[in-house]
Amino acid sequence: MAFPKQVRLVEVGPRDGLQNEPEPISTATKLELIARLGAAGIRYIEAASFVSPKWVPQMADHREVMTGLKRIDGVTYAALTPNLKGLEGALECGVEEVAVFGAASEAFSQKNINCSVAESLARFEPVLERAQQAGVRVRGYVSCVLGCPYEGEIAPAKVAEVAKALYEMGCYEVSLGDTIGTGTPLKAKRMIEAVSCDIPMDKLAAHFHDTYGQALANLYAVMEEGIAVVDSSVAGLGGCPYAKGASGNVASEDVVYLLDGLGIETGIDLDKLAAIGTWITQTIGRPNRSKVGVALAAK
Amino acid sequence: MAFPKQVRLVEVGPRDGLQNEPEPISTATKLELIARLGAAGIRYIEAASFVSPKWVPQMADHREVMTGLKRIDGVTYAALTPNLKGLEGALECGVEEVAVFGAASEAFSQKNINCSVAESLARFEPVLERAQQAGVRVRGYVSCVLGCPYEGEIAPAKVAEVAKALYEMGCYEVSLGDTIGTGTPLKAKRMIEAVSCDIPMDKLAAHFHDTYGQALANLYAVMEEGIAVVDSSVAGLGGCPYAKGASGNVASEDVVYLLDGLGIETGIDLDKLAAIGTWITQTIGRPNRSKVGVALAAK
Repeated sequence: MAFPKQVRLVEVGPRDGLQNEPEPISTATKLELIARLGAAGIRYIEAASFVSPKWVPQMADHREVMTGLKRIDGVTYAALTPNLKGLEGALECGVEEVAVFGAASEAFSQKNINCSVAESLARFEPVLERAQQAGVRVRGYVSCVLGCPYEGEIAPAKVAEVAKALYEMGCYEVSLGDTIGTGTPLKAKRMIEAVSCDIPMDKLAAHFHDTYGQALANLYAVMEEGIAVVDSSVAGLGGCPYAKGASGNVASEDVVYLLDGLGIETGIDLDKLAAIGTWITQTIGRPNRSKVGVALAAK
Repeated sequence: MAFPKQVRLVEVGPRDGLQNEPEPISTATKLELIARLGAAGIRYIEAASFVSPKWVPQMADHREVMTGLKRIDGVTYAALTPNLKGLEGALECGVEEVAVFGAASEAFSQKNINCSVAESLARFEPVLERAQQAGVRVRGYVSCVLGCPYEGEIAPAKVAEVAKALYEMGCYEVSLGDTIGTGTPLKAKRMIEAVSCDIPMDKLAAHFHDTYGQALANLYAVMEEGIAVVDSSVAGLGGCPYAKGASGNVASEDVVYLLDGLGIETGIDLDKLAAIGTWITQTIGRPNRSKVGVALAAK
């Protein structure tokens, strides 16, 4: 057992957390959320998604968000850019880091973006090239790493293959997503072991969902393996599109509480973070899915 | 890392889970809950509490519950008996196992049962004696093992001292309760290490609350130490009296899902268990606090 001394949190609430909200959320609210997260000590915020408003209407104001940011020194504000058009838009807004999104499941890739995994990877190549040309770092996501809503089980070797392709294409970090939150700790460990054969452990991140309540146990298990970057969403914003009413992203507050208890540094102020969770869920009329947030607010 | 091959679940829903419900729950519903839990493969059910109805009105029908049970072979139906009067009542109902309840926190003991820890232990002595005389096994609980709502931190040595006293008094098993759910994995491990200096690991149980979302991570950590008995409550029934609206007992469904994923046998049918959680929460009008239960119901 050798836990990392520090863990970097990647806050995905403003993008992954809000993107499926049916009611429009104002740009001002998004900017306020991002500003508060930075002030609480979060050092990496996924702020917007440069996709067509036809597909994700909630992210239609990506330009206003990316250009309206009050930047804090030392904080990275990233944007999801699934294709070259999205990347060009993000570059025009002065983005310093972007992300691309692949899947470890053929069925998920087909249903989600209407192409095979190999085709999706091929589409990312010009995105990576253009980003490198512009001096912008690219983070890669792999979804369905511990299960797929259509295929069920996913082989760790398949995850490793997709992660390796993204890494070799130039992604500086690959985030491994348990999109449907069905993973358990040993399965998560085995997946990480498979992926880390090809990619150094410090280039990997865990992006776990809490749909089955296992996210913190899974994070504990993969941190034992050396994982030191964790994606999470304040108040567990996001839900699960594959099981309505269920949890999605693990809540940042719950992760920080776990890390504080393990003596792992994050630089994040938990009380401030919990207050943000209370504020944003009240503002958008959603339940607070952070147990730490609910417990602290009830004290 | 050497996980146990089997874990025994102690289902506390019908007692710990229901005891603070303000609206009366019918004896028939309680009996139906207990019957369904047994049919799902649960082998140990805490069914009632022989306390004064003045203090716990919801448990006033303890006699009707204990004598109305349709017993299943191989299932233990236990009752909480905090004093000799309670024990005599339970014995009249033909109980085969009882439990007593101590605290690792002086402040909690004073506020909760109006006496010191030492005084509470002294009160249990005649209960243990009488139970042994009657051939009835006694389980001991220690509360506040990872924190106290009044004192805050609790020293592992204090937990070990109280647990040892209960064990030496004749409790065949000591259940270690994180009453306010503030524990994290390393703290839980250190506490278990301290207690297991005096008591064999196979005589200890983990009774963790999920108030801060840490219960499964904590269970994972203490199972790595060898803990193989886990207390839980179907649908997470119970809430937390110290943080209104927050979670209490870890949900049995979430624990079974974790154990299934780790390849640890429980003999419990998860789908049946989840259906019980849906049914009982609908019946008593409470939210289902099992993430597994909610996710399975939403599929």
